[in-house]
Amino acid sequence: MTSRVYNFSAGPAVMPVEVLEEARENLLSLGETGIGILEHSHRGKAFMAVRDEAEALIRELASIPDNYDVLFLQGGASLQFGMIPMNFLSEGQTADYLVTGAWSKKAVTEAKLFGNVHIASTSEDRNFCYIPKQAQFSSYPAYIHFTSNNTIFGTQYAAEPDVPEDSILICDASSDIFCRPIDVSKYAMIYAGAQKNLGPSGLTLVIIRKDLVEAGSESLSAMLQYRTHAENQSLYNTPPTFGIYLVGRVCAWLKAQGGLAAIEAKNRAKAGVLYDYLDSSELFRPTADHDSRSLMNVTFVTGDADRDAEFLKQVTAAGFQNLKGHRSVGGMRASIYNAFPAEGVDALVNFMRDFEAKS
Amino acid sequence: MTSRVYNFSAGPAVMPVEVLEEARENLLSLGETGIGILEHSHRGKAFMAVRDEAEALIRELASIPDNYDVLFLQGGASLQFGMIPMNFLSEGQTADYLVTGAWSKKAVTEAKLFGNVHIASTSEDRNFCYIPKQAQFSSYPAYIHFTSNNTIFGTQYAAEPDVPEDSILICDASSDIFCRPIDVSKYAMIYAGAQKNLGPSGLTLVIIRKDLVEAGSESLSAMLQYRTHAENQSLYNTPPTFGIYLVGRVCAWLKAQGGLAAIEAKNRAKAGVLYDYLDSSELFRPTADHDSRSLMNVTFVTGDADRDAEFLKQVTAAGFQNLKGHRSVGGMRASIYNAFPAEGVDALVNFMRDFEAKS
Repeated sequence: MTSRVYNFSAGPAVMPVEVLEEARENLLSLGETGIGILEHSHRGKAFMAVRDEAEALIRELASIPDNYDVLFLQGGASLQFGMIPMNFLSEGQTADYLVTGAWSKKAVTEAKLFGNVHIASTSEDRNFCYIPKQAQFSSYPAYIHFTSNNTIFGTQYAAEPDVPEDSILICDASSDIFCRPIDVSKYAMIYAGAQKNLGPSGLTLVIIRKDLVEAGSESLSAMLQYRTHAENQSLYNTPPTFGIYLVGRVCAWLKAQGGLAAIEAKNRAKAGVLYDYLDSSELFRPTADHDSRSLMNVTFVTGDADRDAEFLKQVTAAGFQNLKGHRSVGGMRASIYNAFPAEGVDALVNFMRDFEAKS
Repeated sequence: MTSRVYNFSAGPAVMPVEVLEEARENLLSLGETGIGILEHSHRGKAFMAVRDEAEALIRELASIPDNYDVLFLQGGASLQFGMIPMNFLSEGQTADYLVTGAWSKKAVTEAKLFGNVHIASTSEDRNFCYIPKQAQFSSYPAYIHFTSNNTIFGTQYAAEPDVPEDSILICDASSDIFCRPIDVSKYAMIYAGAQKNLGPSGLTLVIIRKDLVEAGSESLSAMLQYRTHAENQSLYNTPPTFGIYLVGRVCAWLKAQGGLAAIEAKNRAKAGVLYDYLDSSELFRPTADHDSRSLMNVTFVTGDADRDAEFLKQVTAAGFQNLKGHRSVGGMRASIYNAFPAEGVDALVNFMRDFEAKS
């Protein structure tokens, strides 16, 4: 078998080897059923057990209160950008958006199709290299939306933004969900495309308070109403069964790692190794402000595009894959999600040290 | 390894063993890349090659003309039920629907949210056990929609319905796509959830004429406009990468089987074995009218619910899985999609003969 390389992809991203090995075993027969995981009816006992276990593990990991639904949807965060205002923003109403990157901006563009948008804060003045400390909210926003981690810009909210009491806080947590413990009760809704920290692309996890589900528009296409999925345990139509299976196995792996507090400690250690080196380096520097640094996506540059290119050429040849930064930031980006192994970060830092020494 | 059983599931359904074995090999490393198929960036070279090959194979298999786009979407046929009228049916306009089962009816319900619906034909008078021969179309329908195969009721259009020249014909082919050659030029749009004849759940194949893409509404959420996906090679946001990979491999398998004409011959032979026995049986009878029988889903009953239940109990115990019919028809349903092995049909018929002999 081909040996695996260090894959710093921003998403789809590295998955736990143990999960992939388990999935491999179940492709031709899920357990003793004689039917592969991809081939089981979504309404049969075997898949229902898979679905129920996935939901139970998600609830357990994040201590999700009973007044929240856990939904398995399709269409990625991008479909949520539209579904949220379609459901919760009426013409004439205003929703508040905290804008910290390209994905926040896409969410704003969608919301404007359905109502008014107030930008409560933005860090666009410095190319999104920081998380704003202050926000100016409108008087009665329909909801407040923020992006907890900004994949492209390497920034992350250290904690939930301070919002007025009883605000309906909605979070796009696509790129940092379950990287640390989360107090779900602070949110009305959390959503995440699975392909960064939870598993494969093609599945969107939505954690949503039941009163918000009930408040959603009733005049939309059935598939675009949260209640349709909540009332049917995400089985209104055929769900992405393999994605649900994989997210369940990733959550079982997270639990085996010690749960979200233990994962946070590992993530802090992993990111710390890289940031500590970057802070000490005279060649490389991180692009995000110190207090806004992401645990998941570490963005850095040399300050010289040619040298960035030379580094990328050499580091890629050495087997470190997908380190090229997004074109809007340039330089390098190391995406080190939950499943990224600590030894891969150590190896990268060693390579960078050598590269710097030779420069 | 556990031996595989005969899986007559209506969907998700049996997949070719060769495809599953190949997928298994690529879970931890796609070819020599050192990165599993689930973990590759959707914008990287390795996945782009996978995507491009899948589209090329689909185009080759169905001889799709160049003025059609091939899109890989999410949300199943159910999201298409809404997206079609959202895009192509304005308030005051009328769309014509041919109603041949539960899925057609769901499509009608969605269309009514956005415009007028004219039921051009329906077989509801006899619980959808036949395909109507005639249809009465409205004067200037925005489009004409039909369901080529009815999973629940075991019926299938033998050929495209006769429609007025220059009609915009849209087909939900979820449960029989690529079961036989198809003249794409007769359609403006063909769509199919992949989980019956193409691969896994969580991916929707859309084959759509470019002028229809351009005619779609421009005021919708970006994800709900076909042009968004057409303009971005289905990579506007992260697509279901594993699903695209699998559909590509299933199409490669179809090609290796000899293409759609060869598959049709195999499907006719498989279904023929079962229908011939049913026609000769004094215990079982098919529920669909002779000229409306599906090659994909063979529905049958004994006429006695207790005997149906006893048969299902025994046949399931013998290792034939998921033969229970949908509750709205009762009895039994054998879903025998492209990937269902001929020897499984032979084995089922042998079991049924023995059961009948002992009755």
